[in-house]
Amino acid sequence: MSDEQVKKRGLTADDYVEGVLNQNRAIIARTITLVESNAPKHFELAQEVLKRLMPYTGNSIRIGITGVPGAGKSTLIEAFGSMLCDEGHRLAVLAVDPSSTVSKGSILGDKTRMETLSKHPNAYIRPSPSGGTLGGVARKSRETMLICEAAGYDVIFVETVGVGQSETTVRSMVDFFLVLMLTGGGDELQGMKKGVMEIADAIFINKADGDNKQPALNARSEYNRLLHYLQPATPGWETKAYTVSALTGEGIPGIWNVIREYEEKMKESGFFEERRISQLSEWMDRLIEDELKRTFYQKEEVLNLLPDMKKKVSDGIIPLAQAVKELMEVYRA
Amino acid sequence: MSDEQVKKRGLTADDYVEGVLNQNRAIIARTITLVESNAPKHFELAQEVLKRLMPYTGNSIRIGITGVPGAGKSTLIEAFGSMLCDEGHRLAVLAVDPSSTVSKGSILGDKTRMETLSKHPNAYIRPSPSGGTLGGVARKSRETMLICEAAGYDVIFVETVGVGQSETTVRSMVDFFLVLMLTGGGDELQGMKKGVMEIADAIFINKADGDNKQPALNARSEYNRLLHYLQPATPGWETKAYTVSALTGEGIPGIWNVIREYEEKMKESGFFEERRISQLSEWMDRLIEDELKRTFYQKEEVLNLLPDMKKKVSDGIIPLAQAVKELMEVYRA
Repeated sequence: MSDEQVKKRGLTADDYVEGVLNQNRAIIARTITLVESNAPKHFELAQEVLKRLMPYTGNSIRIGITGVPGAGKSTLIEAFGSMLCDEGHRLAVLAVDPSSTVSKGSILGDKTRMETLSKHPNAYIRPSPSGGTLGGVARKSRETMLICEAAGYDVIFVETVGVGQSETTVRSMVDFFLVLMLTGGGDELQGMKKGVMEIADAIFINKADGDNKQPALNARSEYNRLLHYLQPATPGWETKAYTVSALTGEGIPGIWNVIREYEEKMKESGFFEERRISQLSEWMDRLIEDELKRTFYQKEEVLNLLPDMKKKVSDGIIPLAQAVKELMEVYRA
Repeated sequence: MSDEQVKKRGLTADDYVEGVLNQNRAIIARTITLVESNAPKHFELAQEVLKRLMPYTGNSIRIGITGVPGAGKSTLIEAFGSMLCDEGHRLAVLAVDPSSTVSKGSILGDKTRMETLSKHPNAYIRPSPSGGTLGGVARKSRETMLICEAAGYDVIFVETVGVGQSETTVRSMVDFFLVLMLTGGGDELQGMKKGVMEIADAIFINKADGDNKQPALNARSEYNRLLHYLQPATPGWETKAYTVSALTGEGIPGIWNVIREYEEKMKESGFFEERRISQLSEWMDRLIEDELKRTFYQKEEVLNLLPDMKKKVSDGIIPLAQAVKELMEVYRA
């Protein structure tokens, strides 16, 4: 079946599954679009396809990537990703960006940001699912990750822009979490987002080139000093800071060395598999929670009563538990 | 009405409200027991009492206190609390300890730990509500806090032992969050619980006495160095580290100075009130979430299906979203 043909007609579950397993890029894209769909009519088919792809998933290393704005995430992904693809790896770059609009105008995963990489036959770049809650966006990216694994991509990058809780969410779907940082005169580490350092498996200080190299090395020492005092994100692994230059390429092969060492160590200790299992369980709890909240907050009677209750509580007219009880009664009615 | 009399018969809402407002210790205790009750028959009365006490609440400074095991929380609360009571403040010491058992054998808030303070006429010490989820325990402590405020306690300590998410939960119910730390040879800051430093408004390094004084001062510098690089827990307030000795009393008055300065600054900026309002809204969302989860996980059909679904998901037999959908169908049926 040619790419032209698959675009013309609706696909069956067989078509999707076969296309993904045969690494047909057009079908991979359509499968992702299918699982990203919010239309109830697509749900059954999407889940059927995913179900049949399940046995082929899990064989990649899942790498989360975040960084402060301006840290050069795109350039780094371009340089690091191209290296991996040149070495024969098949790389999928996904994104979790809950701030992206319905227009699919997400900056994340945008192919124009990674021109060389996007043209590489071994790379597949997919922008963030658009709109919706962080939970919804992340769920879709997680399913996309599984599709890419079934399509034989052995390295998955999950990039996040760092809005709200997005880092924690991405951390909960990847094996390794990489944080990209910058150095800056004097206050090298200032303004770090709360808790991010504590979920990192490695910190890379980018733009360690030219005049910026020495400050970057200083920042690395400072980070290592701080990291020493924090509990590691992964038990049995020491999170460290490194310098890298996406511009000159210096330090880029080192990223992969760190990740490989991590993978080997964690597979040896059994924590690699253990984390994946607990991640799955946590995801299930979280999806249930999201679903419960959705049914509650979408109920018309609840929506009608909520503003009044919130006001009465904040004005001190009724106690919190009383307000919640009344809302729950309306929800259950 | 004598204490003996109130013990004998059931109280009306009037009795409770009047007793609390008149600062009758026996009635305060019974009111707290009433709101802590899990019996559905007590709910209406408890909420009625709380509702009538609402106009008298809010006039305290709410201080969260946590610390690593062995940091000397009890000794510090005893010393700091006694000082406040001697100065004429009325102090309530509450606790949030989700690990405490049904036997009410909680170590937190235990009067035997704070012998001097517990005998002070201006102090009221209440152990953690026992059993249940963190959310449930915290909800009860929050309501107890309101009762104590209505009873004229102008300083509230909410102590937590630091199990699971308890610090974050306590942070969400107090104005000021104090973290007690220790120093130790070389690795002064090692083993700090993830994220705790980032929700602290002040860090006090205890046991800064004798041979330990210099190491404590060194640890203070080290903490200040770290804190400088983190976003402050409270916008417009610089979290700093201090040394204190609950044993010698050195630094104890300084704790109060820091808190007073904080209160003044935050009231001036309006953030004090702003945080209380947003805390209330967050608590409401959280109570709703807890209630939704409770109704879901208590439903027999859900409980019957859940283990099977979890297994099928972790064995890769069905996709996550499919499992959640089936569970939701059973829940709604």
